[in-house]
Amino acid sequence: MALVVKKFGGTSVGTVEKIQLVAQRVIAQQQQGDQVVVVVSAMAGETNRLVGLSHAITKTPEGREYDVLVSTGEQVTISLLSLAIQNMGGKAISFLGHQVKILTDEAHSKARILSIEGERIHQELGQGKVVVVAGFQGVDRQGNLTTLGRGGSDTTAVALAAALKADICEIFTDVDGVYTTDPNMVPHAKKIDRISYDEMLEMASTGAKVLQIRSVEMAAKYQVPLEVRCTFNDNPGTLVTQEEAQMESRMVTGVSYDRNEAKIAVREVPDKPGIASKIFTPVSEANINVDMIVQNVSSKGHTDLTFTVPKSELQQSLKIVEPIAKAIGAKQVETSTEIAKVSVIGLGMRSHAGIAAKMFETLAQDNINVQMISTSEIKISIIIDEKYLELAVRILHDAFELGN
Amino acid sequence: MALVVKKFGGTSVGTVEKIQLVAQRVIAQQQQGDQVVVVVSAMAGETNRLVGLSHAITKTPEGREYDVLVSTGEQVTISLLSLAIQNMGGKAISFLGHQVKILTDEAHSKARILSIEGERIHQELGQGKVVVVAGFQGVDRQGNLTTLGRGGSDTTAVALAAALKADICEIFTDVDGVYTTDPNMVPHAKKIDRISYDEMLEMASTGAKVLQIRSVEMAAKYQVPLEVRCTFNDNPGTLVTQEEAQMESRMVTGVSYDRNEAKIAVREVPDKPGIASKIFTPVSEANINVDMIVQNVSSKGHTDLTFTVPKSELQQSLKIVEPIAKAIGAKQVETSTEIAKVSVIGLGMRSHAGIAAKMFETLAQDNINVQMISTSEIKISIIIDEKYLELAVRILHDAFELGN
Repeated sequence: MALVVKKFGGTSVGTVEKIQLVAQRVIAQQQQGDQVVVVVSAMAGETNRLVGLSHAITKTPEGREYDVLVSTGEQVTISLLSLAIQNMGGKAISFLGHQVKILTDEAHSKARILSIEGERIHQELGQGKVVVVAGFQGVDRQGNLTTLGRGGSDTTAVALAAALKADICEIFTDVDGVYTTDPNMVPHAKKIDRISYDEMLEMASTGAKVLQIRSVEMAAKYQVPLEVRCTFNDNPGTLVTQEEAQMESRMVTGVSYDRNEAKIAVREVPDKPGIASKIFTPVSEANINVDMIVQNVSSKGHTDLTFTVPKSELQQSLKIVEPIAKAIGAKQVETSTEIAKVSVIGLGMRSHAGIAAKMFETLAQDNINVQMISTSEIKISIIIDEKYLELAVRILHDAFELGN
Repeated sequence: MALVVKKFGGTSVGTVEKIQLVAQRVIAQQQQGDQVVVVVSAMAGETNRLVGLSHAITKTPEGREYDVLVSTGEQVTISLLSLAIQNMGGKAISFLGHQVKILTDEAHSKARILSIEGERIHQELGQGKVVVVAGFQGVDRQGNLTTLGRGGSDTTAVALAAALKADICEIFTDVDGVYTTDPNMVPHAKKIDRISYDEMLEMASTGAKVLQIRSVEMAAKYQVPLEVRCTFNDNPGTLVTQEEAQMESRMVTGVSYDRNEAKIAVREVPDKPGIASKIFTPVSEANINVDMIVQNVSSKGHTDLTFTVPKSELQQSLKIVEPIAKAIGAKQVETSTEIAKVSVIGLGMRSHAGIAAKMFETLAQDNINVQMISTSEIKISIIIDEKYLELAVRILHDAFELGN
């Protein structure tokens, strides 16, 4: 007998018929003798409907009251799924975040889970019930409703799996698993059977959208085995798990990309200690997420400082950076939104030499200019002109022999 | 400075624009120096949408999980109204049933409020906030969500007014107040300025739909002054309050009607002690609400037992009554759904003689046959053929000079 946490996203519960499919799946697994906890998102389209209502009221819906609104989406789904299971003769009970005390901090719309009370869930499982938990929501110490940010249901599922000491956390979605790259861009991309937490984290944080980053971090921290699977078939998915020897034998595991960054270059900054912090401290204090930072070698006492921020935060960043650039005597500030980031990821980098060289050589063969480079132990990210993005992903995927 | 509880029903908050109107109203009152608590229902149509979803899943959506679903409607409204107040520069905080501990019994979909914790609400009012509370919902001792039944938001408002010792509870709706009879049926029906709790209770329980019965009972019990007013204008409404001398001077206060009853007649029952209980005990055990009961004078050791039940429960009632009728030797069971109940209500009945006589005489003049009669201290109800309903209401309303 295993204890399994299964998470179904918005498209998997997008209609009454799909909810009934999920109910069948869940009952079938329970009949095999497993204990089943299900975490669900809002029905596809529902969150957008709610957000639309709030935008008709105020330009900037946010904070405590906004979380009260958007958390209703998951509440509808847990009820319908529980009714569907009961209607098929199964036993089910639903829980909202506050009912199983999914305690979070007070950061509305991006709250972090602090703890979960698993006792009540174990009791209900022990009575033969399927336990259906609302994803995405929690409650803070004062009893205010909180939400975890888009995709937060993944995190709910992993946190529950950790709290309940589940044997596995299965994340159901509309794709078969994690692919070597986006199959919409490279049709012969291959499903990855097993991937390490660290690789998955790099994939997610460099643009692969299949799992929320925080859920992978939490799975790694609590060593929860995570499987990404398809709702609509029984194919085996991708297991996200601890490192295994076999994983290092691959040179590269996947190629990911991100179109949502913009570049800011501060030109000819006087090269003195403390200049970088003068720029980046106020930017980070404004909660702007700086991703890549490159500082060129100084020439004649001047240096170029280049970094990327989310496109949506470019204007706000400029408002902060331009007066500072002027004050510290930089020549000018240039920006570009026509860039893209491509990343190559794999534990194999630790043992295989020359991966970076192979990457640059491959790009050079097709005359793709690399504007910025940033590396970690198991990842190389580059910024290129956006128009070469598809080409770059395709030739890198081929060069590292990732396809079928 | 007064503490006012204002309740807005589904049509009053049916669109974003109407929610903004409510926000304006509430802010205006607060600026006059009053403390304001607002209770809201689900946006018009929302509850039906949710019920529709559940019916697509199961023929009999009910119980714990059903309450989880339908309580989301009010949650959406409290959020939007709070955001609207904030967007207009006001301060607002929303509360769900469980957040201010609206404790109920465990009877899902028809729960009764046991207590409310008013302390937190007083705190927030003290900080200059408008407090927005979800109507219709509560929480039982185990933390399960419960709902109070259709129209339950009225009860939430009155219970809050009682718990907070509010100066008045205002129920906003799409009509100007309580009328002497249904203005759709009798265009010259008149708005009643003041009405006693007892009269309002009789009006509500005999078919006037403007207030939920339980909310009037609770207002009477805790002596909460209740005002029924229109959301879309500033006209004074109807004050439901304690008895006043002036109220008794009216012969009749209102005429109400109900088309939703069906009649069951058990013919020629052997007239022995205990026969009535043999029939009505199992009926009430099935939770069927028997309204009027008439037993004719016995002739030749036999009697006729006639009673009314809600039309929707006629078939279920028959399944219980027919075998019993057979067993106790009744001749036959007859039913009719083409009946209607008309009631004449007024404290004045206590002091004015001849109201019943006048009622029967008025009906007789137009050849309307009275099938059943039932009276209380301040009410006379009759059952007539449904086709005479409009005529009966009109002539009674005129006979007691209730119109403009």
